[in-house]
Amino acid sequence: MIVCDMSDAIKQLAILGSTGSIGQQTLEVVRALPHRFHIVGLATGTNITLLAKQASEFKPRFVYYSSASSQDSEVPSPLADLEYELLSLEDIACHPQVDTVVIATSGKAGLSPTLAAVKAGKTVALANKESLVMAGEIITNEAKRNKAQILPIDSEHSAIWQCLQGETQKAARIILTASGGPFHGYSSDQLERVMAKQALKHPSWQMGRKVTIDSATLMNKGLEVIEAHWLFNMPFDNIKVLIHPQSIVHSMVEFIDGSIKAQLSYPDMRLPIQYALSYPERLPNPQLPRLNWSNISNLTFEQPDFDAFPCLKLAIEAGKKGGAYPAVLCAADEVAVDLFLSQRIKFTDIANLIQQVLEQYQSPARPTLEEIMAADTWARQKVLEIVGGNPC
Amino acid sequence: MIVCDMSDAIKQLAILGSTGSIGQQTLEVVRALPHRFHIVGLATGTNITLLAKQASEFKPRFVYYSSASSQDSEVPSPLADLEYELLSLEDIACHPQVDTVVIATSGKAGLSPTLAAVKAGKTVALANKESLVMAGEIITNEAKRNKAQILPIDSEHSAIWQCLQGETQKAARIILTASGGPFHGYSSDQLERVMAKQALKHPSWQMGRKVTIDSATLMNKGLEVIEAHWLFNMPFDNIKVLIHPQSIVHSMVEFIDGSIKAQLSYPDMRLPIQYALSYPERLPNPQLPRLNWSNISNLTFEQPDFDAFPCLKLAIEAGKKGGAYPAVLCAADEVAVDLFLSQRIKFTDIANLIQQVLEQYQSPARPTLEEIMAADTWARQKVLEIVGGNPC
Repeated sequence: MIVCDMSDAIKQLAILGSTGSIGQQTLEVVRALPHRFHIVGLATGTNITLLAKQASEFKPRFVYYSSASSQDSEVPSPLADLEYELLSLEDIACHPQVDTVVIATSGKAGLSPTLAAVKAGKTVALANKESLVMAGEIITNEAKRNKAQILPIDSEHSAIWQCLQGETQKAARIILTASGGPFHGYSSDQLERVMAKQALKHPSWQMGRKVTIDSATLMNKGLEVIEAHWLFNMPFDNIKVLIHPQSIVHSMVEFIDGSIKAQLSYPDMRLPIQYALSYPERLPNPQLPRLNWSNISNLTFEQPDFDAFPCLKLAIEAGKKGGAYPAVLCAADEVAVDLFLSQRIKFTDIANLIQQVLEQYQSPARPTLEEIMAADTWARQKVLEIVGGNPC
Repeated sequence: MIVCDMSDAIKQLAILGSTGSIGQQTLEVVRALPHRFHIVGLATGTNITLLAKQASEFKPRFVYYSSASSQDSEVPSPLADLEYELLSLEDIACHPQVDTVVIATSGKAGLSPTLAAVKAGKTVALANKESLVMAGEIITNEAKRNKAQILPIDSEHSAIWQCLQGETQKAARIILTASGGPFHGYSSDQLERVMAKQALKHPSWQMGRKVTIDSATLMNKGLEVIEAHWLFNMPFDNIKVLIHPQSIVHSMVEFIDGSIKAQLSYPDMRLPIQYALSYPERLPNPQLPRLNWSNISNLTFEQPDFDAFPCLKLAIEAGKKGGAYPAVLCAADEVAVDLFLSQRIKFTDIANLIQQVLEQYQSPARPTLEEIMAADTWARQKVLEIVGGNPC
């Protein structure tokens, strides 16, 4: 009898942040391609109801959820009937049974497991921007040292990565496209009056709340510039941002002969997620939409308005200054976005607060991870301090 | 003393058709990158004055010009003072001293030297459409057998080729872009009345007369579809044509996961020429223009109008039928375009004539080269016969 063992072809995945937007879409890809991917680990912060649902479908061997989500002991846990081993995010990220770690957590929670995964030489499919923004130098150095691959899941960075395939030389320039968000074309005055509800309506992408606000301020694009700098070892002056409201061209790369390659698709995160998982192969997936050129007549491009959207400038400046400035930017932004969502500050205060915090910070030149974390904590407190002192 | 011998890094080029538009632009690239390319052969049809100028600058060892250009014996030949060996196109194409043969001749004159070059296992940088259109099966089979590389110089095929780099799987679909030519948007009625002078004004590309008229009828795009079929082993049903008047996106490739890559640049043939010469490397060349995104705000795309531009349909149909139908199409088009340029037929008669000739032809299933050449001759006579019988 011949037993056909296909297990070698199946990638063993751990998804950290499986209940978030990227995590759920990653599971959609796995559901569509069960012969290629197997879930060995799932992790969430506090959404254990959804985690339990996912775990009962995908039967991961390892699970993590935040202890903050421990329930009223009277109510049985939704995970009670399932068999799993409870591990930390870091232990899942570097477990020998895991081939690829999908970092789909948002905020700084992604940093420590990302670092654990690259130290363990794993393939890291990275959707979390903050890791590279906060500690790009440390993470990329560790990845090099341990031969870990960092594969981008962000649609822009995936586009760049796809365009770089097969090229034998370094790119001359990266052109990051940005939808411009819901307030594209607004003046600074108009932006003063926008509400959280409006900012949460993104014209082309379905995303989590934090990323959606970051898209509206263009901070998201600024963080992506820093991310691109680390992922593709590209000087900041050679990274250009271009507003492209249709979100069809996800980014472009210019080569030394002036030739440009672009990657196009409808805005659907499942494509870059799947590419990171299937790389270097591509896999047919009927659920992924095909561009319909009967409906696409116009692709427009314009320069970003740095004055109306100062977050983009702040981010690029912080990236250029290096040290722990990007970590401070990131932390201040996270708190400021929270304050805006809870209607404690105006939309335009997000940039003002971040700028004030950055101005008051002095970074060590090459901060350690501890110094980066301290800068993060300091920035968060600083935002609250400023807002507390000057309630908006 | 250390003698640094860089000759290994210098590619030895023969340019067949050096006095035409592509040939001259190839020499511009060589002029800009003299440390990388060396001219060993130049060939022209009848323009020996320009050939002599080129030969005195580039000092090729081998030269060819058509015996039809032999001059009045009273006048000294402009080549008289130069040292060179006069060889046939085929002998230059397969000479051991030649690494890469640039086939920049127009019309069927390119077929025989292309075949000679692939049989000799050369790298062939191919700008001549007719070779692959007329004898795609024979040429690609010979290339495979003799491990010859055929590298496209046409901007569309270069774009596709660039987008395919590094991809491990066959593409799902090719999207050939077309400027639409000077009569884009014209109705059939309007096209009845257009003159050669108008047709020769191409909105985005500077090209030879024959190609410019072919661009106006969209026959050029039809020939490119057939060329793409052979170059990339792509079924006709998976090759799509899209009108893109700005001529910035030179073509696109769709992969099995739905991701699309596009190649962009200003319409300047020196880029695809240089890429074919430098492949797999890219070389910096300050003479090649960079896209200026401050001036590019809008890229538009629309479906081609097959009714107003029947040549596109005729070409795709001939390609699908195979055999010697594409050769008949090509030959009939060449004669019809000549007749239009000499004002003997109307613009819309070009397609009518080609259609009539195709309808009267019966092709062998897998024609030999001799049968293809006979079909070519037959088609040329047939066009003249029809026009003679029914003067327009």
